[in-house]
Amino acid sequence: MNLERYFSDIINDVNNAIAKYLESANTPTLYEASRHLFSAGGKRLRPLILVSSADSLGGDRKRSILAGAAIETLHTFTLVHDDIMDHDSLRRGLPTVHVKWGEPMAILAGDLLHAKAFQMLNDSLTGFDNDIYHKVMETFVNSVITLSEGQAMDMEFENRDDVAIDDYMEMIKKKTAYLIACSSGIGSMISGGDNTTFEKFFNFGLYLGISFQIVDDIIGITSDESELGKPVFSDIREGKRTLLVIKTLNEASSEELLLLRSVLGNRNSSHEDLKKAAEIIKTHSFEYAYNLAEKYKVMALSNLSEINFKNKDAIDALIYISDFTVKRRK
Amino acid sequence: MNLERYFSDIINDVNNAIAKYLESANTPTLYEASRHLFSAGGKRLRPLILVSSADSLGGDRKRSILAGAAIETLHTFTLVHDDIMDHDSLRRGLPTVHVKWGEPMAILAGDLLHAKAFQMLNDSLTGFDNDIYHKVMETFVNSVITLSEGQAMDMEFENRDDVAIDDYMEMIKKKTAYLIACSSGIGSMISGGDNTTFEKFFNFGLYLGISFQIVDDIIGITSDESELGKPVFSDIREGKRTLLVIKTLNEASSEELLLLRSVLGNRNSSHEDLKKAAEIIKTHSFEYAYNLAEKYKVMALSNLSEINFKNKDAIDALIYISDFTVKRRK
Repeated sequence: MNLERYFSDIINDVNNAIAKYLESANTPTLYEASRHLFSAGGKRLRPLILVSSADSLGGDRKRSILAGAAIETLHTFTLVHDDIMDHDSLRRGLPTVHVKWGEPMAILAGDLLHAKAFQMLNDSLTGFDNDIYHKVMETFVNSVITLSEGQAMDMEFENRDDVAIDDYMEMIKKKTAYLIACSSGIGSMISGGDNTTFEKFFNFGLYLGISFQIVDDIIGITSDESELGKPVFSDIREGKRTLLVIKTLNEASSEELLLLRSVLGNRNSSHEDLKKAAEIIKTHSFEYAYNLAEKYKVMALSNLSEINFKNKDAIDALIYISDFTVKRRK
Repeated sequence: MNLERYFSDIINDVNNAIAKYLESANTPTLYEASRHLFSAGGKRLRPLILVSSADSLGGDRKRSILAGAAIETLHTFTLVHDDIMDHDSLRRGLPTVHVKWGEPMAILAGDLLHAKAFQMLNDSLTGFDNDIYHKVMETFVNSVITLSEGQAMDMEFENRDDVAIDDYMEMIKKKTAYLIACSSGIGSMISGGDNTTFEKFFNFGLYLGISFQIVDDIIGITSDESELGKPVFSDIREGKRTLLVIKTLNEASSEELLLLRSVLGNRNSSHEDLKKAAEIIKTHSFEYAYNLAEKYKVMALSNLSEINFKNKDAIDALIYISDFTVKRRK
């Protein structure tokens, strides 16, 4: 199978569905602000996972495309609001929504996307029995609730000095992994997967999501601005307690700690100090973080291997996505 | 029937349902911020309308209480975010959520409430057929979408000098009336009301909501801070294009216009100037606005009178709520 074509077909259909739901004659500024981040590209990782999962069980493509559009729209709503909360001014190489339209409009655009996501999901469920309807909705709702809790933990961590690796794992499970688990899980549910199959798809997404976030934290320190689409070292400047930072704080010498503590969360740090801090972090944590990401990817694939699939190509697509998730750091 | 008892029973049950869904062991700050506005009281107008509408058709109370909790939670989410957008620091006599916990936590608390509202609604629909499930969800989702558009119009009006009365009516229909229409409409749908009955309940709520908002605008100018729970004349200070202001701008003398234009939207206006502006507004618009509110209330009741009810007491409760909505300005 031509994987590139397989993925680009899904992405096109998902983009078209989203565009259709975000068309509007009245209040044009609100809708323009809501469409902004979609036009900046993005990997569409969550819909790719949802649709491939559905395909692997022989699910209806029309349904999975709409559910995929819902999950991408939900994800985008969280990005718009996270950028306000984190005071980030660049995303995917574009000014963030609140920078372009002001905070009130950005809050409102996020709220609209949140509701639009539910609208798309509701429409994707036409004709289903009550039990599937209720369970898909519940999984989707829980992903927003869990994500909000994860974001609250992330914000709280910035003011704490005693964040442990277990705290971090709990936080990224909530903030990132749960929505990816929800993508593969819903893909299974809307394609006739039973409870056991749902569990396996859900765990596949959960472990893949953890792996994905760890790699994202690594990329946040190794890549330059054009690759990142946002300023380099912003995680360090904001004092984010990533796995890398926690591991480093646990292991660094007292001399290294002195520098780290003066740089982490200090928005006035010089580029030179940020670079020094990044070097210290690399030395202590990269090998460890990469191995952990690899371990979770293997756990994800192990769940996938137990699935009684109908379409091998779609499973291959999910394996490709999993490998890419970890490899992209290089 | 003892109406006071009837209402307080509903309010207690709705409050208990909300409290149960907003309990949480982890991320306590997020949940505390989310519960804040509920603890400050409020009329619970929307759940009262939803549950009374359901009762009037002999609907299941357990279901309507949970749907009522959902609609109140949705309403509260919009208040939390509106207060950030409008820079309001007082609500129901308490500091607003963003004043107490900061903007990032207030954005997040609103998002959590938004998702929790969907969770409650989803749980209230257990066991229903797909078509009712889909239609209730759709009505609920549309209320958020419509509300966001109404808020966008309201914000845009502050920078415009040519807002007509029709524009205002369209805006309050979206920003306020639609959610009240959704309350009576969903009450009907979850109690076996057919499409015609739904239409009548929906229109009852829509017209009542318009009446309610016009009276709210009147109260915003006539009441003192302890009645309002927020600073007096804040609508004038923020330059809100209420029905009263639009009507006055259409009719005022050139001398009056001079004062009005220097005060409306001027956050540094003196209390004396605000009071003068309020007097001018009263003279030109109160009679007109009050008559219009009364007219919409009559249209609301006319829809209600056509309903083939099973429970007369619940209809009486809805009539009482309608009368109270307009009379409370006195």
